[in-house]
Amino acid sequence: MLAHRLIERKRDGGRLEPGEWRALALAYASGHVPDYQMAAFLMAVYWRGMDRSETAALTEAMLGSGSRLDLSHLAVPRIDKHSTGGVGDKVSLILAPLVASLGIAVPMMSGRSLGHTGGTLDKLESIPGFRTSLSLAEARAQIERLGCALIGQSGEIAPVDRKMYALRDATATVESIPLIASSIMSKKLAEGLTGLVLDIKRGSGAFLPELARGLELAELMVGLGADHGCPTVALITAMDRPLGRAVGNALEVEEAIHTLKGEGPADLLEVTYALGAEMLVLGGVAASHDAARRSMERAISSGAAAERFAEIIEAQGGNPGVVEDPAVLPQADACELFVAPRRGLVARIEPRAIGRGLTALGGGRTKVDDRVEPSVGFVITARVGDWVEAGEPLATIFARDASGVEAGRAALRGAITIGDEAELPLPLVSHRVTATGVQPYGRDGSEPVDGPGPIVGDR
Amino acid sequence: MLAHRLIERKRDGGRLEPGEWRALALAYASGHVPDYQMAAFLMAVYWRGMDRSETAALTEAMLGSGSRLDLSHLAVPRIDKHSTGGVGDKVSLILAPLVASLGIAVPMMSGRSLGHTGGTLDKLESIPGFRTSLSLAEARAQIERLGCALIGQSGEIAPVDRKMYALRDATATVESIPLIASSIMSKKLAEGLTGLVLDIKRGSGAFLPELARGLELAELMVGLGADHGCPTVALITAMDRPLGRAVGNALEVEEAIHTLKGEGPADLLEVTYALGAEMLVLGGVAASHDAARRSMERAISSGAAAERFAEIIEAQGGNPGVVEDPAVLPQADACELFVAPRRGLVARIEPRAIGRGLTALGGGRTKVDDRVEPSVGFVITARVGDWVEAGEPLATIFARDASGVEAGRAALRGAITIGDEAELPLPLVSHRVTATGVQPYGRDGSEPVDGPGPIVGDR
Repeated sequence: MLAHRLIERKRDGGRLEPGEWRALALAYASGHVPDYQMAAFLMAVYWRGMDRSETAALTEAMLGSGSRLDLSHLAVPRIDKHSTGGVGDKVSLILAPLVASLGIAVPMMSGRSLGHTGGTLDKLESIPGFRTSLSLAEARAQIERLGCALIGQSGEIAPVDRKMYALRDATATVESIPLIASSIMSKKLAEGLTGLVLDIKRGSGAFLPELARGLELAELMVGLGADHGCPTVALITAMDRPLGRAVGNALEVEEAIHTLKGEGPADLLEVTYALGAEMLVLGGVAASHDAARRSMERAISSGAAAERFAEIIEAQGGNPGVVEDPAVLPQADACELFVAPRRGLVARIEPRAIGRGLTALGGGRTKVDDRVEPSVGFVITARVGDWVEAGEPLATIFARDASGVEAGRAALRGAITIGDEAELPLPLVSHRVTATGVQPYGRDGSEPVDGPGPIVGDR
Repeated sequence: MLAHRLIERKRDGGRLEPGEWRALALAYASGHVPDYQMAAFLMAVYWRGMDRSETAALTEAMLGSGSRLDLSHLAVPRIDKHSTGGVGDKVSLILAPLVASLGIAVPMMSGRSLGHTGGTLDKLESIPGFRTSLSLAEARAQIERLGCALIGQSGEIAPVDRKMYALRDATATVESIPLIASSIMSKKLAEGLTGLVLDIKRGSGAFLPELARGLELAELMVGLGADHGCPTVALITAMDRPLGRAVGNALEVEEAIHTLKGEGPADLLEVTYALGAEMLVLGGVAASHDAARRSMERAISSGAAAERFAEIIEAQGGNPGVVEDPAVLPQADACELFVAPRRGLVARIEPRAIGRGLTALGGGRTKVDDRVEPSVGFVITARVGDWVEAGEPLATIFARDASGVEAGRAALRGAITIGDEAELPLPLVSHRVTATGVQPYGRDGSEPVDGPGPIVGDR
């Protein structure tokens, strides 16, 4: 009768005590509470919400349902980055080896592509031989040696969250801020971190497009981190257009490698540096965001960051030669330029449409068990605000065959708008959220970065 | 992906088209939509509601999922009564043989006790040998011969409703007016009726205690009946106290038999006549409510109604001797008077507490598969507004043993309040709802019956 009483209470707008969250999570894990009762409960939570202490209790219950990565014997700071996901967001691939090369341990657990957003695991697995399913013991040993492991959510970590997330996905109860916050934080807090940096996307391609909702999520997660003695900082970043140029698994790995070698697009580098600076300052490895930025620039120009990526790839069974020669990545059989249908301003590059286009090419997932084709995708060279002539190349389509090319062309036609006026893109990084509150973003948290920043610089 | 899309739409306050309701019901019946998706959907419906056309479409879909009782070859009117349930509500046991003896065919499908409310099937099964699980063919043959069959919801009728109701019961999604309306009407419309009378209880012991919610349900069901060419009338009746004196399965059968012989409590007879008059007028067997009432009085005084009950009992395998001698019913081993703890007015007899007390004695159910003890219960002789002296008997407790007596005593202590002032009881029948709207109730729908009516007359 427990579940029925709790569903009823949440349905009527009441709250659950910490012990009730624990009991519910345990009963769900053991199967005593069946999926159908949990589904009704989750819809009631979607409707009625959870207060801060309820969210903390659920996070704690999910965290306590599994193992933790114990890295407390390491002398170095242990800091991870989590993004709410977007299109072309390959920051993790660059950031993890970059900050690991600067003395931060990064026990990075990532997810897979679903819907219009990409997933770090799928991208990594486009590297021939790369294994993302390390045990916690293997990950621990690799972090000791290389300062980084890039792995999937182990079955040992927060198993209740795994089970509940799959149910939410099937029952249209994913987009609940407290459920998202407790799901993410239960996994991140299991990584034994000394600090956490969150990349909360906003804009039409983000999971929560509205700024207000993104800030709400950011503040909630920052608070949950603080409760657990894990200092947490969140940046609000732009997802009203794809990040960087490449969208597609192997294509994004290739772009990440170029970026690690100092040849990446400015917007991608800017977001990577902003998040990396937070990690380095949180870890006490840099005294200021500017100092952190200079360290990262050196790690890139010296080749240390790229070398660390090669070492991580080799340690996880992948072909480290990919860093020297990205051509070892799977290559698409068909590729074709996509050109401007008319002259004008590039008014809009709609990230959701690009993400869905990738799925149409076979490079994304609509169901959890879909197979992902690593080679396909887009490289979009046009930027919002560019002036283009009819027939000028805007992007390249990489596909399996001619019908894939056609699907890619249709997607780009829908995604890229050429007009007479361009919308003002969102600032790349607009807000910084810490335990003391929300501030407009500047490199040192002092003043906002104006307008589209690096996009302007890139023109 | 169908279910996910429909959950999402309902979650966001949208509506489903008739074809979508049909597809969802079919997919749920076949198992293509699993319980957990339906549970999330039902909670979204609980939250967002359904408009009239959605309710009609779901009713139609559930009705269409099973067989119907085809009685169209009968020359007589086919009219059923349905009650939303209460404590001491044994009206069906009296009404069905009574109106059947006056030329109405009554294909009555009833339910079982659950929670604090009783169930007609459990009451009937306290009659030794009585079988409620007739096939539709058996029921049809019996209705042809005796004008009445008293049966359970056959698995052949509205199987989607059966499956969905069990799920709602487990997921705290029962109390949704459109879901209640479509569940009831899908079953009733499968009975091949030419008319339907609804008894919508209100007051603290009712399923929907508030008048406004009861009226909403009544108007919705009356409308759904009219849509299907089944003229439907609803009466709003009092459930702020138990109906009649007996609460408990065999005890209620005994009281029903006394009432069929003209020796029943006035309130029970009054509600039975009010509902019966609607059935007889709807069926064209009586020209007015007053004429209907006189016919029913004659059927009782002549013994025809009681005789018809005996015939029905015999046809369904029960011992018809029960009508002559109710002592053939199961008898409780322990029985004890419950007396007034102080002098004063009987201020309140709380029906929910009485219903829960019956469950504590073993005579009700908290789970669908609980076994029900037929012999136990209460006979409450005190009425709200009675003046009693300390030590004066208020009720008799019928139990299995001494500890049952103690549980019964505790329940009555909580349920019966003796004070200095009595609350004014609700009018026994307060409103009449037809396709043309809601009216205050009078015998001919003209004027309300004042105050507690028969309770006053009974003092």
